[in-house]
Amino acid sequence: MLTRIDHVGIACRDLGEAVTRYQSVFGLILVNQEINEEQGVKEAMLQVADAPAGTSYVQLLEPLHPDTPVGRFLAKRGPGLHHVAYQVADIDAALAACRAAGLRLIDEQPRVGIRRSRVAFLHPGSSGGVLTEIVQPAVHSEEPVAAAGREVQ
Amino acid sequence: MLTRIDHVGIACRDLGEAVTRYQSVFGLILVNQEINEEQGVKEAMLQVADAPAGTSYVQLLEPLHPDTPVGRFLAKRGPGLHHVAYQVADIDAALAACRAAGLRLIDEQPRVGIRRSRVAFLHPGSSGGVLTEIVQPAVHSEEPVAAAGREVQ
Repeated sequence: MLTRIDHVGIACRDLGEAVTRYQSVFGLILVNQEINEEQGVKEAMLQVADAPAGTSYVQLLEPLHPDTPVGRFLAKRGPGLHHVAYQVADIDAALAACRAAGLRLIDEQPRVGIRRSRVAFLHPGSSGGVLTEIVQPAVHSEEPVAAAGREVQ
Repeated sequence: MLTRIDHVGIACRDLGEAVTRYQSVFGLILVNQEINEEQGVKEAMLQVADAPAGTSYVQLLEPLHPDTPVGRFLAKRGPGLHHVAYQVADIDAALAACRAAGLRLIDEQPRVGIRRSRVAFLHPGSSGGVLTEIVQPAVHSEEPVAAAGREVQ
């Protein structure tokens, strides 16, 4: 069902500072940055520079308000690892398989994620305490962010 | 410096139960299981089935005793995401670069990790709250576990 690790999601208090650290210290490449009002986050996707295209992203998440999922996570646990996301080829089939396996779903239906992907979250309560996301990527290029209009800063 | 996400590390209370869940629900393939006395863990490495060889592992960690790093993590936070590990081509150079960048290191020198890799941990205190591991993999085959002698169960 899962085809690869798509990304790890990391909660942070200052997205700009976190992006700069992953760029300067670890050499990651910023490929997208956007605001997701529905999820209440400002988020950036960075790719591990030498990884195969479409793999090995780090997603940095800064809450727009304290009363959001990431805001509550930060208040409770502080900055750090928030979730892991796996790619799937067919998210509708994958979600049906998770439901059939008895997993508790946060999203009964896929919703729109970063970079126009389709995503769904599985509840950590039936996934060993791990907030788990499945992602069906949209078709897109792997070009680093160039146009200022795509950035939120 | 980083070449890809090697694995996510997940702390669990019952390694056998966790391995079974990742195999049966998500279709991951068990590639190694071993005891690391130095780190005080019984650990299993599973690969996302359709991922390119050498990528996208899930490492499940059960502490051998409560007074171990993973045991203390479980007592404080419960089961869940424990660390993220990135592959590097040259761990000595990568560790030197991390030191030069001012990162706080847990391991001043690389030590032996799962599957005879060389690994080092960076302290979450200077990595945005994320326990971060860098891994220089050993050369090995990607065959699933077959010989009972390689398993700890």
